[in-house]
Amino acid sequence: MNDVCPIRLERPRVHVLDQTLLPGEERFLSLDSIDAACEAIACLRVRGAPLLGIVGAAAMAVAGESVGVTDQLLREAAQRVSGTRPTAVELRTGADGALTAALAYPEPSRPDVLWRFAEDYLARRIREDRALGEQGAALLAPGTAVLTHCNTGALATGGIGTALGVVRVAWERGNLARCYATETRPLLQGARLTAWELKRAGIPATLLADSAAASLIASGTVQAVITGADRIALNGDTANKIGTYGLAAVAARHAIPFYVAAPRSTFDPGCATGASIPIEFRDGAEVQGFAGHRWSPEGLEAYNPAFDVTPGELITAFVTEAGVLLPPYATSLPALLQAP
Amino acid sequence: MNDVCPIRLERPRVHVLDQTLLPGEERFLSLDSIDAACEAIACLRVRGAPLLGIVGAAAMAVAGESVGVTDQLLREAAQRVSGTRPTAVELRTGADGALTAALAYPEPSRPDVLWRFAEDYLARRIREDRALGEQGAALLAPGTAVLTHCNTGALATGGIGTALGVVRVAWERGNLARCYATETRPLLQGARLTAWELKRAGIPATLLADSAAASLIASGTVQAVITGADRIALNGDTANKIGTYGLAAVAARHAIPFYVAAPRSTFDPGCATGASIPIEFRDGAEVQGFAGHRWSPEGLEAYNPAFDVTPGELITAFVTEAGVLLPPYATSLPALLQAP
Repeated sequence: MNDVCPIRLERPRVHVLDQTLLPGEERFLSLDSIDAACEAIACLRVRGAPLLGIVGAAAMAVAGESVGVTDQLLREAAQRVSGTRPTAVELRTGADGALTAALAYPEPSRPDVLWRFAEDYLARRIREDRALGEQGAALLAPGTAVLTHCNTGALATGGIGTALGVVRVAWERGNLARCYATETRPLLQGARLTAWELKRAGIPATLLADSAAASLIASGTVQAVITGADRIALNGDTANKIGTYGLAAVAARHAIPFYVAAPRSTFDPGCATGASIPIEFRDGAEVQGFAGHRWSPEGLEAYNPAFDVTPGELITAFVTEAGVLLPPYATSLPALLQAP
Repeated sequence: MNDVCPIRLERPRVHVLDQTLLPGEERFLSLDSIDAACEAIACLRVRGAPLLGIVGAAAMAVAGESVGVTDQLLREAAQRVSGTRPTAVELRTGADGALTAALAYPEPSRPDVLWRFAEDYLARRIREDRALGEQGAALLAPGTAVLTHCNTGALATGGIGTALGVVRVAWERGNLARCYATETRPLLQGARLTAWELKRAGIPATLLADSAAASLIASGTVQAVITGADRIALNGDTANKIGTYGLAAVAARHAIPFYVAAPRSTFDPGCATGASIPIEFRDGAEVQGFAGHRWSPEGLEAYNPAFDVTPGELITAFVTEAGVLLPPYATSLPALLQAP
């Protein structure tokens, strides 16, 4: 059961929810060409790392219908899709995976192979999100109110989401009292997207400014904090949306659990600690206003990292589709990565 | 030296900077009647507790010129000024102080008395802010970068400010490397007002989202955090703008000093601990957007406290016009309040 579905595969078209119009308007775009798919990716009409993986695969299925399926045409299409947002690793994973799958077959079969690949990619995401949600919900006692940050729901993954998927399953089981969502400046993914998903799902929800979270935790109103992750190092240090570290620090002061929900693909065996995770710094204009409305004076510097790093020692547990990881992460984390 | 002056007393008029237009436009309003003064107060064209004290006294001086100076007329004027923002304690202090001063004299002297009272009130604020700034700046070693929150500058007090006054004096002494200012959601006093003051003063300044402060502190870029206070309990627990507590918690984790700058009038002998400080909860609409621009879905609850309480144990020192207070506050704080 998933009442928010940001992507639908209906051969020969792919329909995606235009997330730039949310929460004001729910409009689906029909992507019937690689041009249309790349425009939707470039303009952030679809966003969220796992969802972009599905979109990468789906864009290849559309390209197979509309551009052609020779080796060269498919290679060009995959390159074009991946190049639309070069830093989005999962977009490339989806597009390149589709390319590799198609090239293994003779040309007449390739359109079918591409559609099946995209459908399987989406189905796996839905299955793994659900498994992760079940694992996480088992950690939450009846009557729990949780605090979450940014958007980690269906809009970000195409399944039920990661941290917000845990919230959703806990709600289905009758164990969730309320979900508190930070607005998540500067891009307001919490206020715009998470708030919209929670409202759609009928989950009791409360919005707060990022800086009100410490007061909320101190008041004893929430019994757990749960966020997603962008990249997790081998010692448990976790890069996630800016603001996550502050929430973890305050949760630790008040001895409430701080959970990170992320699929196994988020754990990076190439990073020993958080110090080796590169942090993207974004345009200062994001802090100086929002959506064309500017409220700070011209000519001031801005400090605008997209992510911060939460030390593994502040994380109570990691929730994955394959199980819950507890400290010490130096041993539990490599075991997870080596499991089949 | 104070390059930002939000109020000028030029008998028979009072000129105030319309802060609702900042940082886009610097326009002074000429208040020549009690109506005009009350409109400016009610519409938040002037704001900041200490500045409102001066405005309360100045509004009485204007009333003395324009309405009349009989006992009854002055009493009515004071009531009207105070009633414009009933929760603003300092507004009442200024208006009632002016009333009491005037009533001690025969009617013909009262206009002079009222102007002198307002001028003295402003002069004392300027003197005490400067003294506080000198005390605080002495705590900052050369080359210090500081982080501050909300607006505690000239726009808030009429002098050089409290926490931002410390920043200003440190800059004058050549000891300040840079001031980092949080945007301070939901009302964005940092992004709008502090940023404007720092730019005006030529102080190197950087703006950040509130949730980026923990990352900034963790990076080792700032060597101190300094904020103002709205009310301070006898054990040092401090109510201040929402978000202050989270900053103090992260500063403590990274062992950098967290200073609170506030005049002695902010210490409340009636509050034993922070638990007895009432917290104002404000309209949820403030979190759902800004200035008429709404970005969150309708019908969601909001958690929007105006203040949080920072436990005294997280505060390295209080900076007042009469000196710096160090722990243990249970002894140092009553001593300050009993001093002449």
